[in-house]
Amino acid sequence: MERFDLNILGCGSATPTLQHNPTSQVLNVREKLFMIDCGEGTQLQFRHSRLRFGRLNHIFISHLHGDHCFGLIGLISTLALLGRTGDITIHAHADLETILRPQLDYFCREIPCDVKIEPFDPQISELIYEDRSITVKTIPLIHRIPCAGFLFQEKPKEAHLITDKIKFYDIPIKELAKIKKGADFIREDGTIVPNERLTRPAEPSKSYAYCSDTAYNEKIIPIIEGVDLLYHEATFADAEAFRAKQTGHSTARQAGKIAKMAGVKKLMLGHFSARYTDNGILLQEAKELFDNTILANEGLCEKL
Amino acid sequence: MERFDLNILGCGSATPTLQHNPTSQVLNVREKLFMIDCGEGTQLQFRHSRLRFGRLNHIFISHLHGDHCFGLIGLISTLALLGRTGDITIHAHADLETILRPQLDYFCREIPCDVKIEPFDPQISELIYEDRSITVKTIPLIHRIPCAGFLFQEKPKEAHLITDKIKFYDIPIKELAKIKKGADFIREDGTIVPNERLTRPAEPSKSYAYCSDTAYNEKIIPIIEGVDLLYHEATFADAEAFRAKQTGHSTARQAGKIAKMAGVKKLMLGHFSARYTDNGILLQEAKELFDNTILANEGLCEKL
Repeated sequence: MERFDLNILGCGSATPTLQHNPTSQVLNVREKLFMIDCGEGTQLQFRHSRLRFGRLNHIFISHLHGDHCFGLIGLISTLALLGRTGDITIHAHADLETILRPQLDYFCREIPCDVKIEPFDPQISELIYEDRSITVKTIPLIHRIPCAGFLFQEKPKEAHLITDKIKFYDIPIKELAKIKKGADFIREDGTIVPNERLTRPAEPSKSYAYCSDTAYNEKIIPIIEGVDLLYHEATFADAEAFRAKQTGHSTARQAGKIAKMAGVKKLMLGHFSARYTDNGILLQEAKELFDNTILANEGLCEKL
Repeated sequence: MERFDLNILGCGSATPTLQHNPTSQVLNVREKLFMIDCGEGTQLQFRHSRLRFGRLNHIFISHLHGDHCFGLIGLISTLALLGRTGDITIHAHADLETILRPQLDYFCREIPCDVKIEPFDPQISELIYEDRSITVKTIPLIHRIPCAGFLFQEKPKEAHLITDKIKFYDIPIKELAKIKKGADFIREDGTIVPNERLTRPAEPSKSYAYCSDTAYNEKIIPIIEGVDLLYHEATFADAEAFRAKQTGHSTARQAGKIAKMAGVKKLMLGHFSARYTDNGILLQEAKELFDNTILANEGLCEKL
């Protein structure tokens, strides 16, 4: 199985607590690291996680509230001090350029790499990143300021060739790439060897959706439908439903409802309000609607 | 005894490690809190220390390297979220205005208090703060960029009246303030009751000097002479003396030499390079010149 792990570096909300750090997480896709949000102290949490700074090239920032981006300047300074030479690309709202660039110019004058800020429009769902193995699309969210979630999808994988059969039918090497992609094999006499006789099915492609911060929003359902893991904010319990609405956040129950309606495989709750010293109530309320729910926690590594 | 405690929130250097946070400390003078430097993650360390945010009004920033100031925006955002109304004054190099103000304007639009940035000139030693009980003076340091340390001095305290004697000589209340300050009492018949018969001596005034970051610099000696506690950076051990000079830092031995020449009562080492997982070598090398030396550590509360 190829690696597709979600590492939680922080899952608290605006005011950090002794229990939770501000938001940051790292998706490890086959040893390429993708950071999502970067609250204050993220670089320290990154060190604690034993992930490797050198594997991090792309950072995705959902929105420009401090608890999701104050750690950027410290993280980049440290990458610079470590002698980083490869580009770092930050995908974020266009305002980040005016906020972060003057800091980079002042504090990281001698930085040996380029920091690129790639703006996206949080109001539409668009492809913002693509490589050989994954795509990343934005998920428009409803919050007090422009905000987007991110959908990470593995591309369809190739089927596995069954070596014995390939030998048996004496299939030339140049045909193999096509067969891996699903083609049948046509023998010299015109008979067809169907693909399913030559291959074992590809491993399923994995998908991860990050939705924080957001008010309850059914419009995200078609985008996140059927994902393997949905991280959905659950800042508040039912008792604070009014406050959730007021502040552009969700309750745990609403997160459970979205997970259920979108038919996701698993739900992870996060972005916990500082008022809860124990998040058990949030887990319980989400589980009433969607059973396969877990709580995020600093240090958690969820293998998909 | 009135409180004069130094709380260490972080004593690492540029790259944070699993052992040490970037620099920040809080001097608690009779429950007024004075923060010195504010590296990333300071607000979390502050919470861990159980100090009270509401008691913090003044922040002193030695210089504008990230490991001494990246925590400011997060700390102030949190104070704002907690409904802080009293002013916060940051004493720092003038450049902080151009760096921090745009961030405050963007992230703390609805802040209910004023954030004042009071610039000082790091090249001269000057009085930058004064209240009823203490003064704060800058200490020009030698570093790669403009940098100053801080000398906190309690003002001379008043003598304690000996109640029995005050009654015995039937001294009117209006005379007491003068006697506390050292005056003799002149009776109606012209005889003099000397002050030492009426009072017990005042408690000695305490003093604390913070010197980080700095290369070895004997010019600071007249300013810090005889302080109760000197915090002096000791980024490197002897083996890295050349690197210390190159980067505008000190070795532990140099810190010990300064402490000895300045006749301070106690020396605390800090700003440890990330290369040392155990700072024992630094302690040992400083102690060879100045025995009353301790290592800073996160969570340490040193009562003067």
